[in-house]
Amino acid sequence: MSNFSIILGNVGNFSDRFMGCGYQRDYRLDEMFDRVASVKGVTGVELVSNWHVSAENVKQVKQNLERTGLKLVSIIPDHFGVKKYGKGAFTSKDPSVREQAVRETKEMMDIAQFLGGDLVSLWPGQDGYDYPFQGDYIQERTWFEEGVKECCRYRKDVRVSIEYKQKEPRNFSYPSNVSSTLLMIGKIAEPNCGVTIDYGHGAVAYENLAESVAILKKYGDKLFHVHMNDNYGFWDDDMITGSIHTIPYVEFFYWLKRTGYKGYISTDQYPYREDGRDACNESVRWFELFEELAANIDDKSIDALYKSGSAVDVSAYMRKLLFNR
Amino acid sequence: MSNFSIILGNVGNFSDRFMGCGYQRDYRLDEMFDRVASVKGVTGVELVSNWHVSAENVKQVKQNLERTGLKLVSIIPDHFGVKKYGKGAFTSKDPSVREQAVRETKEMMDIAQFLGGDLVSLWPGQDGYDYPFQGDYIQERTWFEEGVKECCRYRKDVRVSIEYKQKEPRNFSYPSNVSSTLLMIGKIAEPNCGVTIDYGHGAVAYENLAESVAILKKYGDKLFHVHMNDNYGFWDDDMITGSIHTIPYVEFFYWLKRTGYKGYISTDQYPYREDGRDACNESVRWFELFEELAANIDDKSIDALYKSGSAVDVSAYMRKLLFNR
Amino acid sequence: MSNFSIILGNVGNFSDRFMGCGYQRDYRLDEMFDRVASVKGVTGVELVSNWHVSAENVKQVKQNLERTGLKLVSIIPDHFGVKKYGKGAFTSKDPSVREQAVRETKEMMDIAQFLGGDLVSLWPGQDGYDYPFQGDYIQERTWFEEGVKECCRYRKDVRVSIEYKQKEPRNFSYPSNVSSTLLMIGKIAEPNCGVTIDYGHGAVAYENLAESVAILKKYGDKLFHVHMNDNYGFWDDDMITGSIHTIPYVEFFYWLKRTGYKGYISTDQYPYREDGRDACNESVRWFELFEELAANIDDKSIDALYKSGSAVDVSAYMRKLLFNR
Amino acid sequence: MSNFSIILGNVGNFSDRFMGCGYQRDYRLDEMFDRVASVKGVTGVELVSNWHVSAENVKQVKQNLERTGLKLVSIIPDHFGVKKYGKGAFTSKDPSVREQAVRETKEMMDIAQFLGGDLVSLWPGQDGYDYPFQGDYIQERTWFEEGVKECCRYRKDVRVSIEYKQKEPRNFSYPSNVSSTLLMIGKIAEPNCGVTIDYGHGAVAYENLAESVAILKKYGDKLFHVHMNDNYGFWDDDMITGSIHTIPYVEFFYWLKRTGYKGYISTDQYPYREDGRDACNESVRWFELFEELAANIDDKSIDALYKSGSAVDVSAYMRKLLFNR
Repeated sequence: MSNFSIILGNVGNFSDRFMGCGYQRDYRLDEMFDRVASVKGVTGVELVSNWHVSAENVKQVKQNLERTGLKLVSIIPDHFGVKKYGKGAFTSKDPSVREQAVRETKEMMDIAQFLGGDLVSLWPGQDGYDYPFQGDYIQERTWFEEGVKECCRYRKDVRVSIEYKQKEPRNFSYPSNVSSTLLMIGKIAEPNCGVTIDYGHGAVAYENLAESVAILKKYGDKLFHVHMNDNYGFWDDDMITGSIHTIPYVEFFYWLKRTGYKGYISTDQYPYREDGRDACNESVRWFELFEELAANIDDKSIDALYKSGSAVDVSAYMRKLLFNR
Repeated sequence: MSNFSIILGNVGNFSDRFMGCGYQRDYRLDEMFDRVASVKGVTGVELVSNWHVSAENVKQVKQNLERTGLKLVSIIPDHFGVKKYGKGAFTSKDPSVREQAVRETKEMMDIAQFLGGDLVSLWPGQDGYDYPFQGDYIQERTWFEEGVKECCRYRKDVRVSIEYKQKEPRNFSYPSNVSSTLLMIGKIAEPNCGVTIDYGHGAVAYENLAESVAILKKYGDKLFHVHMNDNYGFWDDDMITGSIHTIPYVEFFYWLKRTGYKGYISTDQYPYREDGRDACNESVRWFELFEELAANIDDKSIDALYKSGSAVDVSAYMRKLLFNR
Repeated sequence: MSNFSIILGNVGNFSDRFMGCGYQRDYRLDEMFDRVASVKGVTGVELVSNWHVSAENVKQVKQNLERTGLKLVSIIPDHFGVKKYGKGAFTSKDPSVREQAVRETKEMMDIAQFLGGDLVSLWPGQDGYDYPFQGDYIQERTWFEEGVKECCRYRKDVRVSIEYKQKEPRNFSYPSNVSSTLLMIGKIAEPNCGVTIDYGHGAVAYENLAESVAILKKYGDKLFHVHMNDNYGFWDDDMITGSIHTIPYVEFFYWLKRTGYKGYISTDQYPYREDGRDACNESVRWFELFEELAANIDDKSIDALYKSGSAVDVSAYMRKLLFNR
Repeated sequence: MSNFSIILGNVGNFSDRFMGCGYQRDYRLDEMFDRVASVKGVTGVELVSNWHVSAENVKQVKQNLERTGLKLVSIIPDHFGVKKYGKGAFTSKDPSVREQAVRETKEMMDIAQFLGGDLVSLWPGQDGYDYPFQGDYIQERTWFEEGVKECCRYRKDVRVSIEYKQKEPRNFSYPSNVSSTLLMIGKIAEPNCGVTIDYGHGAVAYENLAESVAILKKYGDKLFHVHMNDNYGFWDDDMITGSIHTIPYVEFFYWLKRTGYKGYISTDQYPYREDGRDACNESVRWFELFEELAANIDDKSIDALYKSGSAVDVSAYMRKLLFNR
């Protein structure tokens, strides 16, 4: 079984641009740790800076980790919810803002290490653009690469993983898909720089996520972390994993196994109108099921499928694997 | 169990705009009938005029129906693959073309009745437009309604069912989604006029097809026929049913049951690179599975789900229903 | 020239699910009125209940209207940003919530009339569903129709206009597209019930908005109001009108003219990272340009285009009309 | 002014999967050359192997080139319309098919050189997959890279340019977007290997094509060729350039200028229901206009826009640039 974790905020309150107050009630930090710990099979937690962890509350966080026995899987520096980063963090047109993005990332690398973690997962949600003629694409991608490179070189014992997304909150993001991010990582050229797959981000970019896992293996073995959720294909709906798709997740878990992925698999969802803890629990239950189904795929069968490439054979095999029909 | 059928061409050859010769070999009419009849559980067949049936070969078709024991489920008049209809059939700017579309539909109503059928399924693929300022939308929708109305009044013992599609081959089709088509049917105002759902066409229009079934029930009980396939959500990929989605089909079959649908369920797919017969067989095997799963949903459970509206409860119930977990 | 207006919040602050504090600073009510009034060519304003107008501040609003000379174009009841409506307003599974939605709508009809308006524009953003098996589609659409009907009958001197949207904040909305909404209006069957087009909502539903105007004309003359913005086609990006598309807006304004639309045209945008007042000013400047271009289309030219349906002729005509080439 | 060219088939007949006979009449090779030559401002032509050029008719092609004075801009080897390549050319599971794809590409490199060209543009339309579990993504991408590398090394005086596309005719293509293709080119590691941008292919992959030009500049200066058309964003509609979008093309031409692109710009469209020659002429007229508008952008203005990143400023500048308002 893989290691499963939950982003702390997933068991909290969720707002959108219309419901600013959130659809749920707010939860205290300690409550959220308890809620994560209550989900069977979960051994890790991810934190977002500012929202959950900062230099000020690092001891409280440490106590919560110890109390619940949860491992710190990663810290996600908040480059998306602070007003100064509204027009970009690593790619802000203001050099002092770019400098802050780097400095705060380094700080989170230190804190992650202090809390027993070794991973910072960057989600550069504001690093992109909205309108034509708004950005100098070459310059801004270069700023991004330079900033992340500086973070990577700051300390080699913490990995820096870039989570790509095609859009939202910007209409266009610079690390937009798996290949776009790998190009940047090629320029960054640091061994502790890799990629976080968010299943739903990839799906919105019309990626088959199993192929994205393969691409990350092939071009540098760069899959560092995984975030999970489901959606309808057009937007990052951040739904419970397995609520819409089934077979594509089996293929995804199969390729995680095939490529030897050993990291954590986290929920990353926005169950606006559900209890967050229960919605995370549902996703984890589906993780277990998909992983078990993937584990049941034997080498002989897969070799035959990859040799024939027959969609008819795939269909029959899937029906047998999933439903014993 | 529902009645399952296959569109005859689904077991034949498939071309696209690049592979004009088709990916498979061509099959003779008799061969195709045999191939359909060989799929276990299939009792009906649909024919496309010109491609499979015409005034000239109607006896050969009748013999094939008798020989194989297949019921004629519908005839689909070819309003999409004949050059004269390239810029529209019922909505051609040329009145003589519009008149031909009506006349040929009536002819197919006669032939359907002669062959033991009672349904003509219209797929007005060319009735739409590609560019801004190309069509007078009010005039052309009116032409469409007038033409179909005339067909419906021609003989009341044959039903005329309109299959909607958002796009392809036109960039915009007039009967674009379930509601757009119901508006037209309201103007046509004939009891023998209804709707054919093509699962994939609806999905590309971002319909949840279970809701589309409900809409057709609510606004006039107008679901006359069903075509099945799967896709990735952006295009009418016409894949094997069940190859990508699972739960959405269970909900679709559940709503067919809930609304008392009694008609046929046909494959309508383009398995370009597969043997068509085997690909249809796969879809039918999934039909059976989905229908059985839908049948296992009890009223008490569904009432509880609809009362709570809880996505967490839905998720747990689906996992239990499908995988007994 | 048409009458142009601005939704008051468009000149304020904008948050999203990540930037809860908003990208801009907050503005006081009076400031926002001044900002609207400062946009040349704007003579009206729309208000959202709770956010801008309520029984408590109605006098302050009236003073602002009088002071600025702006006409109240509509009130949009807040059925989307109040926690009790998080799982639906008119379609809440809780009858007391449905009742509140109706009552508050009636209250806003009274206030609109008191403030010199005659239009309430409903945007039932929460009336839909997110997951399969979450909603009884027939029951919930019926609740929606019953609730709106009751509002329409409450007072005939105020029009009730439904703004459709395919998704967001729900993954599926009940009034999802122009035709879906017209079906509901057919059941509501009240002359003071109509439709608000939001250009971007239609575009995300893959509507050609010019055709949507035509459809509203043809099926009951039901276009009551217009909201404007631009997007990339996949999401309600709520950008400055004219920033991405050009020709489609010319066709849209042409069909407004052709169908005799006499109402207001409002900005409805979320310029997160821009000064809202300036972004509205930009949209209004584009409105003027598009309307002038549409006005320059003569009947003879358009008749020739609609007769030939030639995309080549359209292309040449557009290049001439827009760029005199 | 850039150099403009036309793919020969663009002035011919166009079929789709429903209209196998094509919407137009067929044209002879000589006629098509004449039709291309008749478009003002066009100095080059592209040919597809099998469809237009082969070892058998190479003299006839040469005579046509000489007769019309058109330069051979590229040959596109037909890896998409021959049955043997139906399940892949460079990535066929059959090694003999992969070998043929390489051999035929080399042959076209020779013929291109013989005809005065120096470019082969690969469009590996069949190199991808349709269903989950159908392909071994790592193996098949490696086959692709090996095959193309062998072609590149065959003769250094002919450039080999890969045209990416997210989907169609496969549901997933291996060279799916600009970055995915650059990753492959990194592995191929030959200086004569680059990228063909097809504007519409990029748009369907939700690329802002101006950014794609920038990416190709930044990561190796790899833009070798450009194909042009327009679409609605969801499918490769292959429409007349400029029929839907305006400002995005201005930005695209601006970035061609900014990055010093010196190659040809070709039409690549499927004007099914239009006269192909006239539809190409329309695109070329828009090319000229967009290029002129891009040329009118001065460095000072663009520097100010890129410094502020203000969407309001961009909007005002575009309205001034395009419409002098």
